[in-house]
Amino acid sequence: MKDVKIIELKESIIEDNDKDAAQLRKDMKEEKRFYLNIMSSPGSGKTSCILRTLEGLKGRFEMGVMEADIDASVDAETVAATGIPAVQLHTGGMCHLDADMSRQGIRALDEAAAGLGRPAPEFVILENVGNLVCPAEFDTGAALNTVILSVPEGDDKPLKYPLMFEQCSAVLINKMDSMPAFDFDLEKAKAAVRVRRPDAVIFPVSARTGEGFGAWCEWLASQAAAWLGKEQ
Amino acid sequence: MKDVKIIELKESIIEDNDKDAAQLRKDMKEEKRFYLNIMSSPGSGKTSCILRTLEGLKGRFEMGVMEADIDASVDAETVAATGIPAVQLHTGGMCHLDADMSRQGIRALDEAAAGLGRPAPEFVILENVGNLVCPAEFDTGAALNTVILSVPEGDDKPLKYPLMFEQCSAVLINKMDSMPAFDFDLEKAKAAVRVRRPDAVIFPVSARTGEGFGAWCEWLASQAAAWLGKEQ
Repeated sequence: MKDVKIIELKESIIEDNDKDAAQLRKDMKEEKRFYLNIMSSPGSGKTSCILRTLEGLKGRFEMGVMEADIDASVDAETVAATGIPAVQLHTGGMCHLDADMSRQGIRALDEAAAGLGRPAPEFVILENVGNLVCPAEFDTGAALNTVILSVPEGDDKPLKYPLMFEQCSAVLINKMDSMPAFDFDLEKAKAAVRVRRPDAVIFPVSARTGEGFGAWCEWLASQAAAWLGKEQ
Repeated sequence: MKDVKIIELKESIIEDNDKDAAQLRKDMKEEKRFYLNIMSSPGSGKTSCILRTLEGLKGRFEMGVMEADIDASVDAETVAATGIPAVQLHTGGMCHLDADMSRQGIRALDEAAAGLGRPAPEFVILENVGNLVCPAEFDTGAALNTVILSVPEGDDKPLKYPLMFEQCSAVLINKMDSMPAFDFDLEKAKAAVRVRRPDAVIFPVSARTGEGFGAWCEWLASQAAAWLGKEQ
């Protein structure tokens, strides 16, 4: 088991999170760093999707991963085992991360990268707390918000968790390999996503088989490269 | 589609929710009413488990169901179609219910029952907002808290969402029929539940096939009967 740094996040004392998030986004843009916020229900496969994404983007960006959880540190250990800088963020019971907590995490991630002799990651992935409600209410300062919906959760979830699907311009539909075991209608799911966000980009994937990650990684790489002003 | 009443819950102005919840629990006990709070991640199968439970307890209790959601009303319509009094509670973006919101819901449920010519339900089920974090932090005043963990979510979830599993004396492990599609270790899941709550009663079930609902319904009926001082 890889030793990872566990950061106990301090609750923000900043009153205007929206303003703070805009500032973090501006700072990251100036520092040529791309920040991706991945959200979903508990158990939708965030960590496995992140592992597939790291694999797909290998050699193209300096990556780093922040794993946020109320407790436990197993996810960061899983990521760190691949050699990518990773930190575990503990929210101390809090159901979400805001911009200031992101900043605390990024600082710790930069230190972890330095400890591995690597530069500060130019592509930072946050695995947010597993929750389809609260994380959508707090702007983390990320350049891109992505939500993972998994097949077993049902095709109606975008209708039930409106704000989450309004906030996310990209949607991964994970566990596609489990379709035979569930009554999940992919077209219905896509339509439900588009009720909330007509311009959402939707990627059906399976972190188990790897299906669909090619398209997702290409799209994501182009988004990150555009943000970073980097040639692909 | 059955017409159901949608209640827009008002945010509580009561400062001490713990005290208020204790009061609601006391009132319900005196009025011989049992209140069951069912929590889980989005898409774990709360509504389908409730339908199986209603079926299993048919004719034994006067039942009523409150379906809480941020938006949508499809769950309450599904329950109402069975003829059981049901109301849809909208939390207005809130990620949880507290005791005062429960009280608003129970009042509306009693009206819905009266509209069907039925007495105030003696056995009230709340389907809480799909969220493994926040609902655990707010005592609803329920006599019994139950959490549903579904197989696709993974056997490690009790370790990641400690408070939820500490608060629930009963755990349903749902979607057992999907075991072949996932790497889910039932014994590992049970052990993880017991880390959080050694005395938890655990029921592996499948709302799809009906498997396991006999044992759950018998146990639940005995809990409710004891609370209500009712012979089985």
